[in-house]
Parts: sequence; structure tokens; C-alpha cells
Amino acid sequence: MRLLSRDELEPLATGAWILGAGGGGNPYLALLNLQRLYEQGTRVALLDPAELADDDPVAIVASVGAPLVGRERLSDPHFAARPMLALQSHLDCRFRAVMSVEIGGTNALQPLMVAAVTGLPVVDADSMGRAFPEASMMSFAIAGLPALPLAMADIRDTEVIIPRAADPQWMSRIARKVLGEIGAVSATCRAPRTGAEIKQHGILHSTSRALRIGRTVHEARHRHGDPVAALVEAERGRVLFGGKVQDIERRTTDSFLRGSSRLLGLDGDRGAMLTLEFQNEFAAAWRDGAVVATTPDIICVLDSESGEAIGTEMIRYGQRVSVIVLPAPDFFLTPQGLAATGPRAFGYDFDYRTPRN
Amino acid sequence: MRLLSRDELEPLATGAWILGAGGGGNPYLALLNLQRLYEQGTRVALLDPAELADDDPVAIVASVGAPLVGRERLSDPHFAARPMLALQSHLDCRFRAVMSVEIGGTNALQPLMVAAVTGLPVVDADSMGRAFPEASMMSFAIAGLPALPLAMADIRDTEVIIPRAADPQWMSRIARKVLGEIGAVSATCRAPRTGAEIKQHGILHSTSRALRIGRTVHEARHRHGDPVAALVEAERGRVLFGGKVQDIERRTTDSFLRGSSRLLGLDGDRGAMLTLEFQNEFAAAWRDGAVVATTPDIICVLDSESGEAIGTEMIRYGQRVSVIVLPAPDFFLTPQGLAATGPRAFGYDFDYRTPRN
Repeated sequence: MRLLSRDELEPLATGAWILGAGGGGNPYLALLNLQRLYEQGTRVALLDPAELADDDPVAIVASVGAPLVGRERLSDPHFAARPMLALQSHLDCRFRAVMSVEIGGTNALQPLMVAAVTGLPVVDADSMGRAFPEASMMSFAIAGLPALPLAMADIRDTEVIIPRAADPQWMSRIARKVLGEIGAVSATCRAPRTGAEIKQHGILHSTSRALRIGRTVHEARHRHGDPVAALVEAERGRVLFGGKVQDIERRTTDSFLRGSSRLLGLDGDRGAMLTLEFQNEFAAAWRDGAVVATTPDIICVLDSESGEAIGTEMIRYGQRVSVIVLPAPDFFLTPQGLAATGPRAFGYDFDYRTPRN
Repeated sequence: MRLLSRDELEPLATGAWILGAGGGGNPYLALLNLQRLYEQGTRVALLDPAELADDDPVAIVASVGAPLVGRERLSDPHFAARPMLALQSHLDCRFRAVMSVEIGGTNALQPLMVAAVTGLPVVDADSMGRAFPEASMMSFAIAGLPALPLAMADIRDTEVIIPRAADPQWMSRIARKVLGEIGAVSATCRAPRTGAEIKQHGILHSTSRALRIGRTVHEARHRHGDPVAALVEAERGRVLFGGKVQDIERRTTDSFLRGSSRLLGLDGDRGAMLTLEFQNEFAAAWRDGAVVATTPDIICVLDSESGEAIGTEMIRYGQRVSVIVLPAPDFFLTPQGLAATGPRAFGYDFDYRTPRN
């Protein structure tokens, strides 16, 4: 266990936003919250999963809902901690630590906010190693562990707990109705996991991975290098395409941001076209009509100059971007992992394909 | 404490349906359930509130939702007990007994079903002394006691607990969304009340009142007497009108069954007209345009021959009925009681008026 320093917060946010694969929401507002808490003297501890006892209960937290609403209803650490406290009281237990559902996007910082308020350490792990749109894509869900109980809280002092549901779909149906009624964003805490479950099925050291990615990008910027090239080299990724956003189409259906974007190649890619499709996160890429990258690999669109991630809700005409692919956590490349997170799980009729080999 | 006999079940159902004031739903299906449980050897104990220790926790149960759906999704004692068990686990307590939210209609039998499954006794009391459409009309709510936590359960093994809400309206908004998603009927268990709270704010001996009313009606039928006259005499009520249903108009808005019915007078009331308006329950009556009875008095429409209650969802053209008024529990005739349950609480611009004096 070690304390995260104030200087690590910004690289962590930068790296988490890249690991969001276009989704997960920009961590910027959560970062501001944490920086203020750090200015007030708070420090958050990062706990290696190996330090967990097998029966330590760990709270799994996330903010859920519509990213655009989250831009107006600002993050609040005390609000972030409420569902965890409600679940702790419901289960009559004391959590040993707190952990994120997903390291991609703003949820990477959600457990830090909860930790800042409660004094618990944050486990260096998550259940996705990136951002994914569905709870069924959590590594724990793929491993067959139950997703309940789920606790939700809104800013008005309302709490809802779903202790049981017929199946995960029923849980989602009910949670979505509650979410809609309380205003489309909610802090959540779900199915506490034991230390043993995390060590066996968690995506380990993903907080460190996000931090490392952010540091690589920041250092390259600092020495006026190429952040995209530095990142790809350090993380065994691939540059898929460099170009200019020519077209973007978005629609919000069933609480998902779906759409596509077309990029025109520049420099080495001049004359080529890359098409990206997204369901919250980027799901697949076609180069001149042929599939070249798919989920669960982490497809990222970065500003070509700064290496800053660009979310699917923020891509705009004329942006000069680099599209890169970072390797998916091994967990998702198993047959069960691919069944739950591969292209077919997103409705495509082709299999996983990676530009890495 | 005494065991309820099998012979008491039917009079209890008859009396509860009369105390429903047109609402609360016909207890017939719950009665069939209980009769079967009694045939299998189960017995339910009735506990006088005076026997409760001041700190005994009591589960307050009810079935909520659309009465018409309840005709198709049949009552199931195990399903009725589920929210109580969920709340017991959530609060980490052992309930001493179980009690109904409302003695009017099918909810009079809800705690008996829970008791049959769990072995707990049923407290001879409720929080309405009749049926009312809103949780804010519970005596406990009027006394300022919190309405949470609320536990709901559906037949698919889904449970939802609302431990906190900004206010009772927020609780209702969220509960209604959950209710809609799980299919418009739900068993519930809410804010356990202590023995002291029940003794101070409950409507005491209302189970006995329902049973007594039912017995009066059954005995009059048995000796070919006049059940309506016998009931009114025994319960210090008034016959408001005898006539024939001429017109009925119903609409379901905001989960309430609202509407009105016009009756043409017969015999002593020949030439007169009575208009009844209802919001689930009968709320007010006009004789030839003048208000003659209002909530919280218990306005009942009974079959003139059998004395059987006729619910607001079942009134039909041509029925020969007697309209009677039974006195409201004293609790609701206090200024706070009238503010919460009098005509103005139902949107009328006139005050409580009773035909009793």
C-alpha cells in the first residue's frame, strides 16, 4: 500500500480517459474534485490486490447514467460515497477497500473520491481494464459471480437497494427506471467482491496501467516529443491511422450513444479512409471497408499533437487525430471473454480481429 | 393473543371489503388462499396491540398496485411474505408481529398470509381503519413518523428496498416506477413500527371491527333478515340512500381509479338522486346536488339484498344498492387527520360533513 501523490492525479486521469476507448466519460471534473481534496490535505492510498486477505470485502463503485447529464450535475465525493455506506449498512459489514467497476473514463476516479471521504484504500484493479457499456461485460459477471446487491443514491438523499433480481437483465431494467426517475445520473455500489474473487477474476494493476499511460503521455509532451508514438511503444500498441475527422453521426438509443465517424487519411495514410463505429466506446474500425480492429481491443482516438483522448461524444469535424489500438486485458481474449465482449456481443457478424499480429 | 378460527376468515373478508369504502380490492382471492392454508392445518394468531412491548418491531405489509392486474396475478402467501423477510434481513432485526397498512379490502388479509408463512401473529390494528388511496393518509404518516424503509418484491424473485428518500413524494415516485416495471402489482413491507408507536398512533382493533361487521352481515343473511339495517344499527352508521345504479363513469389516471356514479332513488328515496364520486374509494356523496357525506367517513355501496360490498371498479348499471356511511376512526377527525384525509385532501373545496348528527 502506498499513498498516491498529488502529482499522480492528473496522469491517472489522462491515462484513464485514454483507456475509456472513447467512452466512460471525461474524468476532468472528478480530477478537479480530487485536486481540491488533496489541497485540503486528503491523501488516498493505493492497495496492491495481493495485499487483500481472501475474505476481505471490497466495495465496487461507479457512477452510472448519461454522460451529458454528468457535465451539469457535478461530481461530489460525498455523494459518490453514499451507496457504499448504504450497502455497508444493508450488509452489516465493513468494507476493507474500494475499487472501480471500470478503469476507463471518469469511473477510474470514482473510488478515489469514495476513498477520500471514507479513508479506505483503493484497490489497484478493476473489472474491465477499460470502459465497456454493459454490466454483463464485467470480468466478475463473465466469471459467473452475481451482480447483486446494487445500491444507488441520488443527490436528494434518496437511496435504492436492489438485493435480488430474477436475472441481470431484470436488475438492469429496474435500475434504469430508478435512474430515469432520479435524474439520469447515480452513484452506485454493487456486489461486494472478496479479496479472493478480485485476485482470481479482477483486472489487476489497472490503476497503475492508467497512471503509467498518463505519465508516458505527459512526459512526451513535456519534452516536446510525440505522445502518441511514445504511448504506443510503451504499451505495445499499434497506430491504426492518422487523419482528419470528415464526418460524425451520433444517436442516443436505449441509453447508449451509438454512431460512427469517418476519417480521411493524412501523411502516411493519405488517400485511405478509416470508419469507426461506437456504442458508447469504439467497437470496431474499418480501413477502406475491411475490418482492422475490434473490441475488446482498446480502440482510442487521440489528438495527434497532445495525445489527449477524444470521447465519442466529443469527436468533431476537422479534428486531426491518431487512432491507436492498445491490447485488451488477456481475460477478455478467452472464449468466454470474447463471447461477452467481442464484436458479436455488440451485434456484429464477424469475429475478434487484432492488428497486433 | 388468540387463534383465528377457520369460520372467522369469511366474515373477516366480508367486513374488510365493506370497510374498503369501495376501494382496497376484493379480498376474495386472498380468502381462498387462507382457506386452503387452514385446510392444510395452518392457524394464524391475532394479537391485541396491548400485548406488544413498547420496543417490539412490527412489520407493516400491503399489496400495492392496480386492482385489475391483481385479478390475474393471483395472491400467493409466500410472495406476500418476501418483502418482510427482505426488510428483516436489511434491518438485521426479528419482527415480533405483522400488521396491515389498511384494514379495508384485500390488504386486511395480507398480514394473515404473511403470518401463515412465517408463524408470526397478526396485530389487531392497522393505520387507516378503512382503505385510503395514498400512503400519506396512514395514521403513522399523519403523526409524522417516517414512511421508510420500503421493501418491494415481485413474483420473479426480484426485490427492491428504498432505505431513504428526500421526502414521501420521492419515495412514491421511485416506488411507482419500480412497480410499473415489475408488472403493476407488488407485495410490500414498510417502515417497521414499534409497539409504542402502534399503541399511540395505530387504528386499534380494526381487525376485530372488520370481523364483527362481517359477522353481523352473515348472521342477518342467515336468519333472512336485512343485513344492511343490521350493520348500520350495530356499527352506529347511517343509511344514506337506497336506489338503482343509473350511470357510472370511470377513468384511470395517475394510477388512481377516478369516476362517479349516479343512483336513482327507490322506495323511501323515490324521486331523489344520489351522486357518488370516487378516487379508488368513495370520497363524497351529493343528494340532489347537496353534499351529504364525505371522506374520511366510510361511504359504502352495498348490495341491498345481501349486504355485500360493491367496489368502485365493479359498480354496474341496474344494480340495486344501499349506500351507507360508517363513522371514520376518531383519529382522522382531528384537525391533522382531516387535513390529510378530509375532502380538501382529495381536491374538493368543501369541508368534512357527516350525516351522523
